[in-house]
Amino acid sequence: MTTIRRATPADVPQILEFIRALAEYERAPDAVVATEEGLLRDGFGPQPFYHCLIAEHEGRAAGFALFFFNYSTWQGRPGIYLEDLFVYPELRGLGIGKALLQQVAVFALEKGCRRLQWEVLDWNTPAIDFYRAMGAEFLDEWRNVRVEGEAVERLARAAEAAR
Amino acid sequence: MTTIRRATPADVPQILEFIRALAEYERAPDAVVATEEGLLRDGFGPQPFYHCLIAEHEGRAAGFALFFFNYSTWQGRPGIYLEDLFVYPELRGLGIGKALLQQVAVFALEKGCRRLQWEVLDWNTPAIDFYRAMGAEFLDEWRNVRVEGEAVERLARAAEAAR
Repeated sequence: MTTIRRATPADVPQILEFIRALAEYERAPDAVVATEEGLLRDGFGPQPFYHCLIAEHEGRAAGFALFFFNYSTWQGRPGIYLEDLFVYPELRGLGIGKALLQQVAVFALEKGCRRLQWEVLDWNTPAIDFYRAMGAEFLDEWRNVRVEGEAVERLARAAEAAR
Repeated sequence: MTTIRRATPADVPQILEFIRALAEYERAPDAVVATEEGLLRDGFGPQPFYHCLIAEHEGRAAGFALFFFNYSTWQGRPGIYLEDLFVYPELRGLGIGKALLQQVAVFALEKGCRRLQWEVLDWNTPAIDFYRAMGAEFLDEWRNVRVEGEAVERLARAAEAAR
């Protein structure tokens, strides 16, 4: 028996454990610098930066979905961006990931959002097949671009210098 | 002389014009169903879904940057997702896009964000070259996935049926 519920502040240690387990699966175990303190501050204040659902299977934490609002200027309305969707490897194949994704869809419609978007690693064939079965399309003409850390600071300094 | 300023509600008609001009450049002129009413509601309430900067050149509206907060679970902090960056074609090459991106970086650092992320169409070589010159990296192992409209409703209905 699987149940899906909204995360509470008491789930933060478990959320961080999910995040680390997912990073390990995505071959980037050292990429996680998140802390319980930061996750608590950012997800459970008056204007949370993210929302989180927890899946429990036979009474045990089994997986999570973590998402936030994005915005489509073409649609002129917010959508949902799914940052993380994860089920512990030993609990896969039981429909838990599907149940999480379905509840994200329920959340989206309740908030007037008609689009879910996320990213998947190109070698993650099981996930790609699963998403396709859920009705997903792949927007492969769009490349993801990032500026980070020092490069952001350089841009900001150049702005100050131009004043 | 280029100035960058925060958009106000009075800019909404101009923002919609920018959105339409960008969609035309991206070969999707019919994709824009956004309305002034929706952009006003979503960008200028107490908890805005997006933020917008307007570039003016010689006193005339020249371009815009529209962005919102995303969230990195690996970093455990919010970042900035740049939904739209656009300068009218006849005003390119004057540093206006660079000035916009620099001010987005200033906004990001002010909010404690150290990462800017966005997408670019794979055929848009001028933009790709420009972003690379700004210090951007390209995350080409990540595929973009979307579930939209009817497919979201199917997911949500399946969740209701499983209760």
